[in-house]
Amino acid sequence: MIKEINTVALVGSGNVANHLGVALKDRGVNISGVFGRNEKTVDELRNLLRCKKFLTLDEIKADLVIVCVKDDAISDILEGLDKEQLVAYTSGSMTLNSLARKDHTGVFYPFQTFTAGKEVNMFEVPFFIEANDTYFAHLLFDLAWKLSRKVQFCDSENRKLYHLCGVWVNNFTNHIAFQAKDFTDKHDLDWTNLLPLLKETVDKIEKMNPYEAQTGPARRNDQATIQLQESMQHGIQKEIYSLLTKSIIETYKKA
Amino acid sequence: MIKEINTVALVGSGNVANHLGVALKDRGVNISGVFGRNEKTVDELRNLLRCKKFLTLDEIKADLVIVCVKDDAISDILEGLDKEQLVAYTSGSMTLNSLARKDHTGVFYPFQTFTAGKEVNMFEVPFFIEANDTYFAHLLFDLAWKLSRKVQFCDSENRKLYHLCGVWVNNFTNHIAFQAKDFTDKHDLDWTNLLPLLKETVDKIEKMNPYEAQTGPARRNDQATIQLQESMQHGIQKEIYSLLTKSIIETYKKA
Repeated sequence: MIKEINTVALVGSGNVANHLGVALKDRGVNISGVFGRNEKTVDELRNLLRCKKFLTLDEIKADLVIVCVKDDAISDILEGLDKEQLVAYTSGSMTLNSLARKDHTGVFYPFQTFTAGKEVNMFEVPFFIEANDTYFAHLLFDLAWKLSRKVQFCDSENRKLYHLCGVWVNNFTNHIAFQAKDFTDKHDLDWTNLLPLLKETVDKIEKMNPYEAQTGPARRNDQATIQLQESMQHGIQKEIYSLLTKSIIETYKKA
Repeated sequence: MIKEINTVALVGSGNVANHLGVALKDRGVNISGVFGRNEKTVDELRNLLRCKKFLTLDEIKADLVIVCVKDDAISDILEGLDKEQLVAYTSGSMTLNSLARKDHTGVFYPFQTFTAGKEVNMFEVPFFIEANDTYFAHLLFDLAWKLSRKVQFCDSENRKLYHLCGVWVNNFTNHIAFQAKDFTDKHDLDWTNLLPLLKETVDKIEKMNPYEAQTGPARRNDQATIQLQESMQHGIQKEIYSLLTKSIIETYKKA
């Protein structure tokens, strides 16, 4: 096997492929080319990375292929690649065991949300690495180490757990903000007034245990305010308010 | 009435009194003294601000008294102060109408969470100002303008609405993070791995509508992943997961 991954090919042309491609190129890794179904975004990415466009999976030449596609497309891509080709995929919830392809297959999972046109400090992004073969796992680790200082080996079960945490921290936090924005829209309030508070909330969590950081009517079990606020809301928004309030009250009752 | 508020006395010695006191002093406002029930924190705050300690409400001398105490203590404090004394309180949900004291009474509500030992960029904090008397309202506005560039007049009803938004954006976001941390603790995962994602989530919301920013299994209505993740959770955590998932699915069904 090779000693170091010097050349990477990308399968997929979405946000993960874009951000990884740019970061790898910036750190001196050669991007041999991009393969993907969406002609427009593949062309944009190959122009950005100044690399080839592969028209079939057979054409791909690289030390490593990183597969940045949706979970339900990973298996087909893996089957289409040469059996000797080193391949890693970027999914949080797809376990290695669930795949038919066993050899030369690994995981290169950046635990971050990537958005088109928005730079991320890749150095701070946790990378979760896994492969059945220890040597390949180390090759992937070393590659991730070029991008980040938070690289870790992580088996499929723990990766699934982290992925679920990501749903909480990213998807649910975002939906909480959506509900607040929806409320400001309905009442003609200025949504941007909420942003400094949201930012400080997260700043605080980074420095302080969220258990200690909790404040508010539910934390004080202030029933008068809770009932007033419930009366100001409707539908599923009210349901969420009540359930989260109940959960906070229960959390601090236990203490 | 006076033309400008040059001297402020503080009632209360908690985080709001501390942060407002320091910010006002920094901007050249004279802090005449502090009154409060907790001798220890009052002494700490008067040392910090190098000001007097008032032993009774009668003793207080200042252009304005800012009352930074819990909602259920505000009314008593207001009754104890001289009827001619200008007074403002810092509560989000207490309406002006609900108070017996009508004259020379106003609201000076910083829409932010303040934590001991943690600096906040006061310039970015929205201040919501209200008073029955327009002239007094403008005096309060001008005082807040010394601290922040986000000062706004806001009546009691809208202030109550913002306060509820604060529960969502601060209290609930914090509890979502608590649930995620609780999950990492139970499964021996490293909580700090979640922080870059949490930070980026909020960064993204600041630049992008949370409606557009939503991703994840619920956004895609990916039932396989949702059912897998539900099976990984228990109790109220699972209930919250299911309700937020349902809410996200409903939000994008409407579209």
